[in-house]
Amino acid sequence: MSDSIVDLLSGFDGGRLWADLEQLATFQDADAPPFTRRAFGPVYEQARSWLRERMEEAGLATRRDAAGSLIGHRPGTRDLPLLVVGSHIDTVHGAGRFDGALGVLAAVEIARVLGSSGHRLSHPLEVVDFTGEEPNRFGSSCVGSRAWAGRLDARLLALTDERGESLAQAVGRAGADIERVSESVRDVGSLAAYVELHIEQGPVLETDEFDVGVVNGIVGIRRIGARLSGQPSHAGTTPIPRRRDALAAASELVLAVEHEARQAEGELIGTVGRALVEPNAPNVVPGFVELAFEVRSLDEARLDLAIQRIETAGKEAGAARGVDVVFDVLSELPGVATDPRVVSALEDGAIEAGSRTTTMPSWGGHDASQIAHIAPVGMLFAPSRDGLSHHRDEWTTPEQCANAGRALLAGLVVLDERLAADTTA
Amino acid sequence: MSDSIVDLLSGFDGGRLWADLEQLATFQDADAPPFTRRAFGPVYEQARSWLRERMEEAGLATRRDAAGSLIGHRPGTRDLPLLVVGSHIDTVHGAGRFDGALGVLAAVEIARVLGSSGHRLSHPLEVVDFTGEEPNRFGSSCVGSRAWAGRLDARLLALTDERGESLAQAVGRAGADIERVSESVRDVGSLAAYVELHIEQGPVLETDEFDVGVVNGIVGIRRIGARLSGQPSHAGTTPIPRRRDALAAASELVLAVEHEARQAEGELIGTVGRALVEPNAPNVVPGFVELAFEVRSLDEARLDLAIQRIETAGKEAGAARGVDVVFDVLSELPGVATDPRVVSALEDGAIEAGSRTTTMPSWGGHDASQIAHIAPVGMLFAPSRDGLSHHRDEWTTPEQCANAGRALLAGLVVLDERLAADTTA
Repeated sequence: MSDSIVDLLSGFDGGRLWADLEQLATFQDADAPPFTRRAFGPVYEQARSWLRERMEEAGLATRRDAAGSLIGHRPGTRDLPLLVVGSHIDTVHGAGRFDGALGVLAAVEIARVLGSSGHRLSHPLEVVDFTGEEPNRFGSSCVGSRAWAGRLDARLLALTDERGESLAQAVGRAGADIERVSESVRDVGSLAAYVELHIEQGPVLETDEFDVGVVNGIVGIRRIGARLSGQPSHAGTTPIPRRRDALAAASELVLAVEHEARQAEGELIGTVGRALVEPNAPNVVPGFVELAFEVRSLDEARLDLAIQRIETAGKEAGAARGVDVVFDVLSELPGVATDPRVVSALEDGAIEAGSRTTTMPSWGGHDASQIAHIAPVGMLFAPSRDGLSHHRDEWTTPEQCANAGRALLAGLVVLDERLAADTTA
Repeated sequence: MSDSIVDLLSGFDGGRLWADLEQLATFQDADAPPFTRRAFGPVYEQARSWLRERMEEAGLATRRDAAGSLIGHRPGTRDLPLLVVGSHIDTVHGAGRFDGALGVLAAVEIARVLGSSGHRLSHPLEVVDFTGEEPNRFGSSCVGSRAWAGRLDARLLALTDERGESLAQAVGRAGADIERVSESVRDVGSLAAYVELHIEQGPVLETDEFDVGVVNGIVGIRRIGARLSGQPSHAGTTPIPRRRDALAAASELVLAVEHEARQAEGELIGTVGRALVEPNAPNVVPGFVELAFEVRSLDEARLDLAIQRIETAGKEAGAARGVDVVFDVLSELPGVATDPRVVSALEDGAIEAGSRTTTMPSWGGHDASQIAHIAPVGMLFAPSRDGLSHHRDEWTTPEQCANAGRALLAGLVVLDERLAADTTA
């Protein structure tokens, strides 16, 4: 381990990070469950003002970009593209204290460590709090990171909420200059890498007692609707061979999804979350069922195969019962590759920081999913008790937060050194 | 075949029966789908007045009993208990033309045949149109036949509809004397037998090209509710072994019900008609499912066994997934035995009438289910196209109606002879 990393790690103050997490958690929307801080509300703005002060104290030069993202800048020793580290501080309705917040505040603590140690990275560093990552009332998400990737287009900006306000107006109200949103776009090549620390949102790290997970990709998500059309009939007088029972066929489809996910444990997950039955009367054979299911995997070919198998199983279950089964793709979110060099730097950094480390996919989307369109990305996960997220009981211990923050710091330093060495060579 | 039966059968006028069916079908409630004639409405009363005239023309002495049932009486040659034949002429909302009506009008035609031939049965004969057999707006059914069986109790009579009218008031409004409802009770022993012709309400006779089915019992029905309690969780980040997926467990339960019914084809039927899923979102593992299923069989022990197997399968499916499964009996309707002597007389009569005949259970309840509490009962089924019932497209051809009516006539004559011979011997 390099001496400089040892010094830096000793300067990382877990207590200071924890105090920041506690302080940020006090910014809560009125008339909402605890820890709610939705994007585009007044409390969100107050929290960002507070955060901006913390960034300034850490020696960062701050600004808001045209999409409202809060950026703290620290120069590097060389004229290189940016290293960017961050996440978001908005929450869903009924949220916890760690989702997003941990990634931003750990980055601020890293800036403090760099500032007080005088250690200069080769790359200029930006700490970022992306505007509105969570699903918002306009029906979009990842507003700030989409803007960087040039994907906050006119269609999204024109989306309106229930009262008729547009996303563009909401972003503009917060002091951002949405007319010049194109100026927030970051060119390909302007970022050396983007790194994000986030809570896992799943139980793997806690269960297997890891300190951090190095993300090896963000899964693609396919949502499929299945409409099963049979024939309603009298539950007493219609023999099984004469039935066209849509619920029995649907049940086989549900189990086929579960079976695929069980077979591919760790590589693919699938869920039937939604089922509607008609006519839904206890004495009538169901004539129609609508299901919605989703399948997630890093591997597009694996996704294709699983969906093909599920659809085949559903069609066979239908054919055996005279039930017509039609599938529709409801949405298709491609998987996001992490950058191998970023991943290995984060892994080596985490090990240098003394973390028990594993490699794992991210089963949900993040700001990193957007930034991957324009830059190499990598992510670290911290453990989250019971895998909870978007829940008031979300919990990562002070020690787990500090461990993950130190792993992030070490990973950034390793990444900075390696990328800088490559540009020299 | 006895000469008298041959003579009687030749007198049975299928065209006259068909004309009556067509005429009765013209009595339709306003503001309801075609062929609707619900009990306790003005059109129902008009139809019963018309029917009473038909009974009188057929030589029957008519009266209404205290529960409103319309009864036509023809004396026998001996002082014996009554032979009763009939059904009902009320319908469900959105009904067809044959359910109930065929049984009453075939009995009227039989009275006409007996009257014009001068043939006297040994037993006095009653043709009956039971009041309100179908489920009514008060939440009960089989009003007239329950009254005969002494089962139209104060609790049922006090049931009220949405406007606060009681069943007692509705029955009374139709000119019946509900204060003296106990006078409509028939003593055990006062009926030699009750026989009812009805459409099958299932597809077996049509499919297998039988003219009539002789019913060998009315199945018992158990309705069971199942509540499956797991845990909602994130569809992306919760691995299969960590899930408590209530819908996956429920799907196994649905298939277990289907499996039991398939295994026991002809002896038992089972249906899951109702399923509710919570939270029912495409990206959340379902935490709770409520199912309602029913199982029907003639054989109570078979019912017990099937339900026990289904519940075991459901509990195992739950245990494998950390899902708690609780069953509640929603309702329990015991099966009804038909009388072996009535069944064999109907069978022999149907064969004498030249009908292609089979034996089958009734998978639904009828007025006969009530009368079985006080008298030996038997039923005949006529084919119904596509097994439809409670449907505007309910259809039995004129020839099928006439064949079934002739089988009923021959069966009654055989039954009269055999029962009379037994009382002489």
